[in-house]
Amino acid sequence: MERHLDEELQELKEKLLMMASMAEKNISLSIQCLKERKEEIAQDVYKNEETINFLDIEIDQICMKLLALHQPMAVDLRYITSALKISSELERIADQAVNITDRSLVLINSLPFKPLIDIPRMASMAQSMLKDSIESFIKKDADLARNVCWRDDDMDEMNDQIFRVLLTYMMQEPASIKRAVGLMLIGRHLERIADHSTNISEEVIYYVKGKSIKHHYTD
Amino acid sequence: MERHLDEELQELKEKLLMMASMAEKNISLSIQCLKERKEEIAQDVYKNEETINFLDIEIDQICMKLLALHQPMAVDLRYITSALKISSELERIADQAVNITDRSLVLINSLPFKPLIDIPRMASMAQSMLKDSIESFIKKDADLARNVCWRDDDMDEMNDQIFRVLLTYMMQEPASIKRAVGLMLIGRHLERIADHSTNISEEVIYYVKGKSIKHHYTD
Repeated sequence: MERHLDEELQELKEKLLMMASMAEKNISLSIQCLKERKEEIAQDVYKNEETINFLDIEIDQICMKLLALHQPMAVDLRYITSALKISSELERIADQAVNITDRSLVLINSLPFKPLIDIPRMASMAQSMLKDSIESFIKKDADLARNVCWRDDDMDEMNDQIFRVLLTYMMQEPASIKRAVGLMLIGRHLERIADHSTNISEEVIYYVKGKSIKHHYTD
Repeated sequence: MERHLDEELQELKEKLLMMASMAEKNISLSIQCLKERKEEIAQDVYKNEETINFLDIEIDQICMKLLALHQPMAVDLRYITSALKISSELERIADQAVNITDRSLVLINSLPFKPLIDIPRMASMAQSMLKDSIESFIKKDADLARNVCWRDDDMDEMNDQIFRVLLTYMMQEPASIKRAVGLMLIGRHLERIADHSTNISEEVIYYVKGKSIKHHYTD
């Protein structure tokens, strides 16, 4: 029985890693679509999204099966409930990448109106937060997870800055309003990806330490 | 043991109901703050938010305890894992109410620029989706849950409409840009509340029927 549980936990880990790496890939593709103005990249995002959704359901099923059949305790129980929550976060990260792609398709059909610097930078930050949050789960590294949580403030700040810059553009040049709003919303989607990565990291801390840091709670 | 489990499941239900009703209250207060331009209402929202966060942690703890001590099977197991996920959704709904309140505080310090009709209507729709999603959980009513999922399309449509109206305002009167963007983002927050209520309803269907309808999956 024990060995069987270990094998199934290993399978769960592999599926989660696959899902995370596809979600990360889709963030990167969605921004590439916007930056290089290549419509055809959108199709790759939508195709990957289907696989990600399928993995989400598979991971849910594996977790429920593990809970029902092995009745795990302590750290194994926390591992499985964390995996359940992490896969939901990954699925939502992937949704945000689809939202970015949808908006990018609209934007690349209009003239570019400012060089894209901040949005790709914000995207890299979001991607590295996601990557580290998953690494912290795999390596049981609560310090790395905490570091991801801290980085969320930088993301919020960066998004506020993009917001202010775009508002100024809009006021100076009303013809740019539609495109500026599009970029603002892409900034919001990236900020949400960072939020979900922070949620994953909070879950990792709970899994590793056995207590929640959500809402700055300490017991 | 059995009776004990039933009692604890009952306690879990009561906490979830309390959390849901406070989240619903906060959506309503956040819009009241905007509509009646009353700054003091924001304090109630922030105070309720603390209780909601506390309930989120309490519910997590109850669920983990139930999983560890009672090793529940089948419908009880699904009830508990659903409760775990539903409390996360409620917590995020409450976050969105705080976001609406933050933005409302900025907006009510500027002159009003258009009568508020669509946003309060969208807020009522979001609230009723939340209410019904929780009712469907309590009553194990998969049909009601499905009905909530369908209403999500109406919300998206309504948000798109608000978006278009506000874009027109901004182009005609660039002095309104900041305020219009504020309202757009409030529309987005309400749309997200509807999304979370849809997630709750999908979870209810899984709990009641024992199979997932996420991503239109059927087995």
